[in-house]
Amino acid sequence: MNAPVALDAMGGDHAPRETVAGALAAAAAGVPVVLVGDEARLREELAAQGGELPIVHAPEVIDMHAHATEVRRRRQASINVAMRLVKEGEAEAAVSMGHSGATMASALFTLGRVRGIERPAILAEIPSQAPSGRVHLIDAGANADVRPAHLVQFARMGAAYAERMSGVARPRVGLLSIGEEPTKGNQLVLEAHPLLAEAGLHFVGNVEGRDVLADAADVIVTDGFTGNVVLKLAEGEAKILFGWIKEALASSFKAKLGALLAKDALRRLAARMDPAEYGAMPLLGVRGPAFIGHGASDRRAVRNALARAHKMARSGLVEALAAVE
Amino acid sequence: MNAPVALDAMGGDHAPRETVAGALAAAAAGVPVVLVGDEARLREELAAQGGELPIVHAPEVIDMHAHATEVRRRRQASINVAMRLVKEGEAEAAVSMGHSGATMASALFTLGRVRGIERPAILAEIPSQAPSGRVHLIDAGANADVRPAHLVQFARMGAAYAERMSGVARPRVGLLSIGEEPTKGNQLVLEAHPLLAEAGLHFVGNVEGRDVLADAADVIVTDGFTGNVVLKLAEGEAKILFGWIKEALASSFKAKLGALLAKDALRRLAARMDPAEYGAMPLLGVRGPAFIGHGASDRRAVRNALARAHKMARSGLVEALAAVE
Repeated sequence: MNAPVALDAMGGDHAPRETVAGALAAAAAGVPVVLVGDEARLREELAAQGGELPIVHAPEVIDMHAHATEVRRRRQASINVAMRLVKEGEAEAAVSMGHSGATMASALFTLGRVRGIERPAILAEIPSQAPSGRVHLIDAGANADVRPAHLVQFARMGAAYAERMSGVARPRVGLLSIGEEPTKGNQLVLEAHPLLAEAGLHFVGNVEGRDVLADAADVIVTDGFTGNVVLKLAEGEAKILFGWIKEALASSFKAKLGALLAKDALRRLAARMDPAEYGAMPLLGVRGPAFIGHGASDRRAVRNALARAHKMARSGLVEALAAVE
Repeated sequence: MNAPVALDAMGGDHAPRETVAGALAAAAAGVPVVLVGDEARLREELAAQGGELPIVHAPEVIDMHAHATEVRRRRQASINVAMRLVKEGEAEAAVSMGHSGATMASALFTLGRVRGIERPAILAEIPSQAPSGRVHLIDAGANADVRPAHLVQFARMGAAYAERMSGVARPRVGLLSIGEEPTKGNQLVLEAHPLLAEAGLHFVGNVEGRDVLADAADVIVTDGFTGNVVLKLAEGEAKILFGWIKEALASSFKAKLGALLAKDALRRLAARMDPAEYGAMPLLGVRGPAFIGHGASDRRAVRNALARAHKMARSGLVEALAAVE
């Protein structure tokens, strides 16, 4: 089966220019891609960029200010058409840099949930000191309020992803809390701890904020409120610290000269910390690979997201999750 | 009135060496200090360091592994003696680098709560792009589960602290959430938002994880679970990023040479990001300035904490909080 990855080519702040450019780059790297969106507009963009890709026409688009409830009503919106292609086996995965809430809603009602998963969750990969070079944070924002049993489901999905997508054998699962002892945490964490200990996972207990980027766990489980704050803080702090480093390096002639010499090394590090490195985040627990990217995504993020979605489709992860229960 | 700051000289991983050294440094800078702890042991340490300071004897110490409930029973523990000095007007403030839970418990039952404050909260200052150079995060860990009304009390205390301690006129208060719109957040945040909007503060609405270190607010209000995760992540990430920068700068001869030239500029930045810069965090809402520091505090952190406690005692902050309701 060689179904392509469906890209919601109209989604995102810089669509369709960056989505098309990213899709062409992914296709050049061997990822099969189909563009979903306004056909005339996409043909025009492809011609301007001197490339060719298959297109599935979708006359509508859910813009960034739309209410997520519009998703159900607007059947011909590009995100819905992309998800339907996955549902019908015409695409192996869907990727959107558009409205996150709309993408989640579309994935949920078009693809449906994996059996045994009550709450699909977003998994974020954050560069860390773990051997795989990243920590897998779940839930990064899909569910603001959850119950202890949901955290166990998140843990299962996160561990399966770390294993199949990042090649981590027997991933260490940590529960995000405010102290290492099982007696530390809020009510949710206190109740989830014993459930996680008995879930048959490689549970390493509570981890703290300072452990997120350290080599304490491969998978960190938390509610979608805390997870979203953690993800955005981790990204925002890296950006601000690099800004301060730039300022510091411009503060004297000697420092400037040093900065010039160290430029390549620092640039590689900044690229590693750039969210575009991962491109987009999977919504785990729906029946098909669905990836949600930053609205601000550039072509590099789009290309990396498409490659990741393709990899997940071939990893058998969705089927593995369905087989758990 | 020239009551000194009472330092729990036996508290912390490196006590009494670092506590005594920090106290001597603070005293040399004009901060009146009294050491609280085992008198013979402290005399010995003072002699070894060639300094002199007043001592109030306290025969016991609450070690880092003690249960917080031991605090009430062990009346002669150094932390309890320090708090009693504040309560009785013999000290203007108390500082401890020991067991955080014990320090909180001791402050609560010895000093009591300020009228109108149901839940005292920990305020953390984190370096940020705000004009004052820092953001004031409250609660940073005292209350893992809170009600919406508690967040309003935290906001009041945080704003008063930012105004009197950091010189921020009309501090901008943000509510930590997972989207800017008032409709985004978990149940707690959704209910707290309208209460904060009507609290007579300069409320700027929701702020996200990416805004914590940006110039979005002077005070960020959150529950003690999220706040503690944020604080520890912010500190941990800075440490890990600086480590990666060091590695990057050692990766080639050219980069190494650059690093040598840029060393001073980078060192100043690393010092700014070091939690020792603030020294310790105040527990706001108890009747007297009480500061809680990292167990790992070195002399610089101890000195800075004592200076901060002295400043808070003279700021009239506790009295101002009591006058609010």
